[in-house]
Amino acid sequence: MMSKPMLVCVDDYENYAREHLDRQTLIYFTTGADEEITVKENRDAFKRLRLRPRILRDVSKRDLSTSILGHHVDFPICIAPSGAHCLAFHEGELATVKAAATMKTCMVLSTATTKSIEEVSQTASHCLRWFQLYVWGARKVSEDLVRRVEAAGFKALVLTVDVPYAGKRRQGSLGFQGFKFPPHLELKYMPREATNTQAEKLTDSKSTSSPFVQYFDASLTWECIEWLKSITSLPIILKGILTPEDALLAVQHKVAGIVVSNHGGRQLDYVPATIEALPKIVEAVKDQIEVYMDGGVRTGTDVFKALALGAKAVFVGRPIIYGLSYAGEEGARQVLQILRDELSLTMALSGCSKINDIKPQYVVHQSHFAKL
Amino acid sequence: MMSKPMLVCVDDYENYAREHLDRQTLIYFTTGADEEITVKENRDAFKRLRLRPRILRDVSKRDLSTSILGHHVDFPICIAPSGAHCLAFHEGELATVKAAATMKTCMVLSTATTKSIEEVSQTASHCLRWFQLYVWGARKVSEDLVRRVEAAGFKALVLTVDVPYAGKRRQGSLGFQGFKFPPHLELKYMPREATNTQAEKLTDSKSTSSPFVQYFDASLTWECIEWLKSITSLPIILKGILTPEDALLAVQHKVAGIVVSNHGGRQLDYVPATIEALPKIVEAVKDQIEVYMDGGVRTGTDVFKALALGAKAVFVGRPIIYGLSYAGEEGARQVLQILRDELSLTMALSGCSKINDIKPQYVVHQSHFAKL
Amino acid sequence: MMSKPMLVCVDDYENYAREHLDRQTLIYFTTGADEEITVKENRDAFKRLRLRPRILRDVSKRDLSTSILGHHVDFPICIAPSGAHCLAFHEGELATVKAAATMKTCMVLSTATTKSIEEVSQTASHCLRWFQLYVWGARKVSEDLVRRVEAAGFKALVLTVDVPYAGKRRQGSLGFQGFKFPPHLELKYMPREATNTQAEKLTDSKSTSSPFVQYFDASLTWECIEWLKSITSLPIILKGILTPEDALLAVQHKVAGIVVSNHGGRQLDYVPATIEALPKIVEAVKDQIEVYMDGGVRTGTDVFKALALGAKAVFVGRPIIYGLSYAGEEGARQVLQILRDELSLTMALSGCSKINDIKPQYVVHQSHFAKL
Amino acid sequence: MMSKPMLVCVDDYENYAREHLDRQTLIYFTTGADEEITVKENRDAFKRLRLRPRILRDVSKRDLSTSILGHHVDFPICIAPSGAHCLAFHEGELATVKAAATMKTCMVLSTATTKSIEEVSQTASHCLRWFQLYVWGARKVSEDLVRRVEAAGFKALVLTVDVPYAGKRRQGSLGFQGFKFPPHLELKYMPREATNTQAEKLTDSKSTSSPFVQYFDASLTWECIEWLKSITSLPIILKGILTPEDALLAVQHKVAGIVVSNHGGRQLDYVPATIEALPKIVEAVKDQIEVYMDGGVRTGTDVFKALALGAKAVFVGRPIIYGLSYAGEEGARQVLQILRDELSLTMALSGCSKINDIKPQYVVHQSHFAKL
Repeated sequence: MMSKPMLVCVDDYENYAREHLDRQTLIYFTTGADEEITVKENRDAFKRLRLRPRILRDVSKRDLSTSILGHHVDFPICIAPSGAHCLAFHEGELATVKAAATMKTCMVLSTATTKSIEEVSQTASHCLRWFQLYVWGARKVSEDLVRRVEAAGFKALVLTVDVPYAGKRRQGSLGFQGFKFPPHLELKYMPREATNTQAEKLTDSKSTSSPFVQYFDASLTWECIEWLKSITSLPIILKGILTPEDALLAVQHKVAGIVVSNHGGRQLDYVPATIEALPKIVEAVKDQIEVYMDGGVRTGTDVFKALALGAKAVFVGRPIIYGLSYAGEEGARQVLQILRDELSLTMALSGCSKINDIKPQYVVHQSHFAKL
Repeated sequence: MMSKPMLVCVDDYENYAREHLDRQTLIYFTTGADEEITVKENRDAFKRLRLRPRILRDVSKRDLSTSILGHHVDFPICIAPSGAHCLAFHEGELATVKAAATMKTCMVLSTATTKSIEEVSQTASHCLRWFQLYVWGARKVSEDLVRRVEAAGFKALVLTVDVPYAGKRRQGSLGFQGFKFPPHLELKYMPREATNTQAEKLTDSKSTSSPFVQYFDASLTWECIEWLKSITSLPIILKGILTPEDALLAVQHKVAGIVVSNHGGRQLDYVPATIEALPKIVEAVKDQIEVYMDGGVRTGTDVFKALALGAKAVFVGRPIIYGLSYAGEEGARQVLQILRDELSLTMALSGCSKINDIKPQYVVHQSHFAKL
Repeated sequence: MMSKPMLVCVDDYENYAREHLDRQTLIYFTTGADEEITVKENRDAFKRLRLRPRILRDVSKRDLSTSILGHHVDFPICIAPSGAHCLAFHEGELATVKAAATMKTCMVLSTATTKSIEEVSQTASHCLRWFQLYVWGARKVSEDLVRRVEAAGFKALVLTVDVPYAGKRRQGSLGFQGFKFPPHLELKYMPREATNTQAEKLTDSKSTSSPFVQYFDASLTWECIEWLKSITSLPIILKGILTPEDALLAVQHKVAGIVVSNHGGRQLDYVPATIEALPKIVEAVKDQIEVYMDGGVRTGTDVFKALALGAKAVFVGRPIIYGLSYAGEEGARQVLQILRDELSLTMALSGCSKINDIKPQYVVHQSHFAKL
Repeated sequence: MMSKPMLVCVDDYENYAREHLDRQTLIYFTTGADEEITVKENRDAFKRLRLRPRILRDVSKRDLSTSILGHHVDFPICIAPSGAHCLAFHEGELATVKAAATMKTCMVLSTATTKSIEEVSQTASHCLRWFQLYVWGARKVSEDLVRRVEAAGFKALVLTVDVPYAGKRRQGSLGFQGFKFPPHLELKYMPREATNTQAEKLTDSKSTSSPFVQYFDASLTWECIEWLKSITSLPIILKGILTPEDALLAVQHKVAGIVVSNHGGRQLDYVPATIEALPKIVEAVKDQIEVYMDGGVRTGTDVFKALALGAKAVFVGRPIIYGLSYAGEEGARQVLQILRDELSLTMALSGCSKINDIKPQYVVHQSHFAKL
């Protein structure tokens, strides 16, 4: 690591990853649906928000700790589920969970993990872990998975609800045609026969960017919440909600929380940036359940804005991948440390000493200043 | 076709066409009026609209079929009239109509066709065909054409109402001066003497980009609807309406439908994008007649937005040309298939299973999220 | 002229001029004040307006003629005053006035003319001519000029009111330091001693871009209108008004008309584009006097927009210079012909047959379509 | 100086500095926090404001003089505090104060000065001088400094309130790691041991861009105003206020004035441009105390806009550095002269003869013209 460049912000880690990961891996991790408008919007929408800092408050000590579903985290920046960490660093999700453990935050393990549930748990048994779940057409497969997850000490299920089918990633479509997972890697809980499926085997047209998604249950409805509750006592979080209408349905179906998410812009292009969708959802939910967000978080000011607009915590996905690509566990830890430090500094420079101090009045849309 | 690149979206076909068609043909098909602001707006306006997807609905089966003027189409994406398909592919409109037939959608044949009405009909007699009409100064010419069209089994007349004169296409102006149709090609229903007219023969200034338009009737008024009805029993659709005022006049004159169109930005620059003009027109028309649109449609999300804002179907012009240039009938078919697949996927990811599920609340302007 | 490129729009003439005029001349004619934001806005503001065309009206005959102060012009596009036409073409203002005469429009001769009032009048005695006036510190000089102008058959005085001092043109500042008028040229009515003044002679700082303006009367007030009326019976037009407040003062002081103008962005940077300033001024004036505009007009759609928003006519300055640089009188005539043809075509494609048909409802701001 | 380029505007001086200062010095003076959005906004926000000039007023004599806290200045453009002028020119703050004295304006000396308080005072004892103050953790250090400042004839204390911690300047973070002050230079009132601290000595993460700020008192509250008043009779000005709420608190704590400032975009990124934050603050303060602004002022139109929106005076920082880098005292003087001349010209072209004539109605947001 001696000769590696000194990196000071998440953008630096992204630039590093873009220079060092192979093209197929980059396409897998970084691309979005269609024209990638939503990928871009996830960042740009943050840039349209302005901070209103307050001065002359004692900010010499800041407490960034908070809780999610009653569990302590040292700071409200958690690790979003993303697949195949072994593509970014050979230790894969084991490096990631060690970084989460060291930083005392929560990691959400993806169903598309390249390390097993038990390996991850044993590597960092004290780390707060949640599990991201897809519901398969064959529900028994999902049921078995849920039981293993619960047994392994995971504390919540994060049900992804925005993937009845895979989004169309243009580069991904091409990329996957010749793309095979390295022979030593395995998506642990994806149907074995799908892993190296050639494009020509797919029944759908060439717009399908992932061979796995055909096994998902596209007929899933709100009924699945009842079914999940019948097989597990773990709290259920819905990830992929973008409208107040669905947020209210989530409340009615008594889930524990929701993640305002557009799947990093990878599913349906032209959906709003999550930081833009967040306020109306928070307003509708009225504190009845916890609301989180992911998508486009790259700086401490981003985190601060999300918290001010009502998120209980934010999740970062790609930044962790970029950290892994730089230096495995240590790189992932550095990324979390940078975001934490930047949030701490943003709080100090805004006059906030603890997370609960971060209120809506600290953030306004840029158009707020267009009136004279 | 083995060595051709794999194309996954309409933009890919456009890029292919721009690399493979000769310059004169590209100018003929792609340019727009004056500064081409409206050409650009037709695309950009779609990009300013956001989708509001709903989750946890059974979308495992989607039905994209609909009807236009009572005729079934497998999906609401039809082929707009555009001229001289033989310039893009040697089989010209015959390739196009075969693609439409295979895909079970509607083709609108242009008066500027390079294949005869009867050839097109005999090539795909079961395909739903409409005919695009200009009214000539010599009405007898138009009348004869209408009777041939009706006899050939076309199901509607699409009267173009935005070309009393040809728009000024700057590149076209220059291009046409030296431009001659290849000797083996012919615009079947354009006055013969006009086809290879030199620029110096034109009575108007050098701003005229087409030698044919001088033969159109610039004195045409709403009276022509009555006249058309007197010579044909075919339903009449007006193409080129951009204001609610004219849409209401169309309703009063009892046409069967209207196409919100700006002629692909080729007639009057600075008119609004069609997707922006559409909502107020739909609101005015109140379901009394069918409203279609064309202009700038390049993805399934575009189609979804147009349907959500009230279009009964959309028409695509240049994308078909791009498909033809890639692989004739097969290329045109691929373009339609891609748009169909993308619409299907957009519906699935938005929680819609059939065309009628696509309602206005699924689409908002980006400024919807600017208020905090 | 055989080998010259074929030019089809005013932008082509500008490009030609930028390639063929020497650098000092280009700086003199094209630059604007400070950061040239207003120069750019004069164009960009037109681009933010949309047209709302009407269809199926008999537009086979268009009458573009109108009157300004009771004098007939064949079309409402007149020649704005600009200095030193001899720098663009050796015949200077004589070429310009011949173009105006041929096209049957009005030319406003600048005080900074390089041809004499009498030469211009004798060259085209039947051409409608107005004279642009500065008021000098020494009023007797202005008075003599007014009497010569009146004797020479000019029909109105256009008093420039936005130059108490010269605007700061950054390139102009540098340019003028070494810039000398060619020895055979002369600004006929500028103080002789100023014409070739070196920069170091100027009393003000290096921000002064013109040596002539020091002779203008910076103490001028509305009183000067009464004085002008006392020495001439010519109607007085004020050029350089940008606010409804000053427009109303102009009405109160009984001038015959006003030109909404920002001096082509050459005086005060960051003033609004004229097409944006126009509507509120028209609304305030309520038809009590004629309102014209200049600034940024480059296409027929621009003219149409200005007329729709209430201008009685528009004036073009730099386009005439570009035409002169291309082919003298013939080039200036071509520019006017192009603008006239484009206006005619815009009217036809909008459903307007005469100038009075062009109403406010034909134009909306682009934000009109942002509401869903 | 003979061979130096002729510079006509502040941008020219910036370009000169960017070409001639070494990279470390440029990073020190020009960079901003995080993504430098606020640095850019400070300029861009000015560009979104339009002027509404009035005509035909006697502007032959302009009086730009005004007062700040009762002290005469020849024009309302003062020198903002910025550190280490010796990095830009060997005479450092002595050159700056001589320029201020010649131009009869106010200089605010920074605590990060490279020349002593007494040297600066003796160099230009008649020049109006204010002193910018940080409050150190060790208050006795600050107290001693205040007494020296008062004894040296400074007329006000400008307490910087937006630096409980240093902002994160990405380039600065890297730059400072190897950056050592030239051995012959010294930040006079920064803790000696900090001046050449290596990055690894810092307790905080690598996000800290300045080694000095760790000595500041991050626990500072409004109580410090009372303490300052107890040790000095100098009027107190708070610099770094961005909200009406804090402006009102400043009024309640009876300070003499406030500077609407975002520290040149160097502290917290994504705070509003100062020219955008200004109007609401002026509205809240209601003339109870003087309101100044800094940030992004580069032209006379910028100054005019700030005054129109209620600033009593503006302060310029980086422009002075650029002037110093060009020609020391003479360069700083030229920059002030240019801004003064440009303000004078803007007043003349707007119809204003004295500072008090510059009212809010002279400035509108560009969106003012978007309504038709």
